[in-house]
Amino acid sequence: MHHLDDSIALLTRTPTALNALLGDLPAFWTLSNEGPAPDGQPSFTVRDTVAHLIHADRTDWIPRTRHILDLGESQPFPPFRRFGHIEASMGKSLNTLLDEFAQVRTESLAALGALHLTPADLARRGQHPAFATVTLSELLATWAAHDLTHLHQIARVMAYQLREAVGPFNKFLGVLHCAGHSASA
Amino acid sequence: MHHLDDSIALLTRTPTALNALLGDLPAFWTLSNEGPAPDGQPSFTVRDTVAHLIHADRTDWIPRTRHILDLGESQPFPPFRRFGHIEASMGKSLNTLLDEFAQVRTESLAALGALHLTPADLARRGQHPAFATVTLSELLATWAAHDLTHLHQIARVMAYQLREAVGPFNKFLGVLHCAGHSASA
Repeated sequence: MHHLDDSIALLTRTPTALNALLGDLPAFWTLSNEGPAPDGQPSFTVRDTVAHLIHADRTDWIPRTRHILDLGESQPFPPFRRFGHIEASMGKSLNTLLDEFAQVRTESLAALGALHLTPADLARRGQHPAFATVTLSELLATWAAHDLTHLHQIARVMAYQLREAVGPFNKFLGVLHCAGHSASA
Repeated sequence: MHHLDDSIALLTRTPTALNALLGDLPAFWTLSNEGPAPDGQPSFTVRDTVAHLIHADRTDWIPRTRHILDLGESQPFPPFRRFGHIEASMGKSLNTLLDEFAQVRTESLAALGALHLTPADLARRGQHPAFATVTLSELLATWAAHDLTHLHQIARVMAYQLREAVGPFNKFLGVLHCAGHSASA
């Protein structure tokens, strides 16, 4: 069982941290990607990543928590639409999305708090559509780890924009040698 | 030649972003590491990483900038002491280090601004002790990329603490499959 309070401490801070890092940052950093992904789709920009975090808060973490509490393993979670953020964020600036993320995260954490989860609740199980049975505790730890996987991605996508400018320092900068990794959950 | 203004925009934001992410965060996240490094030394905690960023601002970026401007390629930079932060940060809490990082970064950027660097300055060259000739432009781009390599590391070290708690979601979380990378410069 993971320490839910530690995860909540992080989940609370992520929107403020992203706002401090990314608010009003030049488009050089926020609207550039890492080129095409292996599947030929454009890889995520920083702006896309923030839109994805909003979409995951809206459609994944709390909805799946409720699904486990209400339905248990009787039916699998609806699949997460990995590109569902594209339509929902169309035409919105990064600053607007950062505000929206702060708002939706506040709502998500309020909803979580209102559930007054017990250790027995955290041990309850649900069916992930792609793989095994998962516990509510695992789902909520993954919510926090998902923030971190996208913070990791944001740092990598930004650093990519300097891959040539750093010249021979390139080989000393670990972030430029990160292969990128899948990041959906 | 890289866009120095873009790098300065990031360098200005890093301490505020780290403060928002890490200030008062539970020790679960900030005082744990990834186990022993390949060389047998303990790997960095989040606190160690902030101490390292302070040390790099104090002894690397602006001192090397001055070295290039004053001495050019006539003698190599003094080597950067990768573990020099340990003594300098001993006994200090992470919150204290976050304040210290904000202070030293403000001083570093004020010093950079006071140099009124021209394009000709940015093209000037210095000798790195470990490898090739580098330009001042490359050094300053590396300063920004170094912030990002350590933000990338912080996200990874924090996510590592949840590697078991996430259960079967582990394979979907890219940050848990980052091999870690050297991060000195």
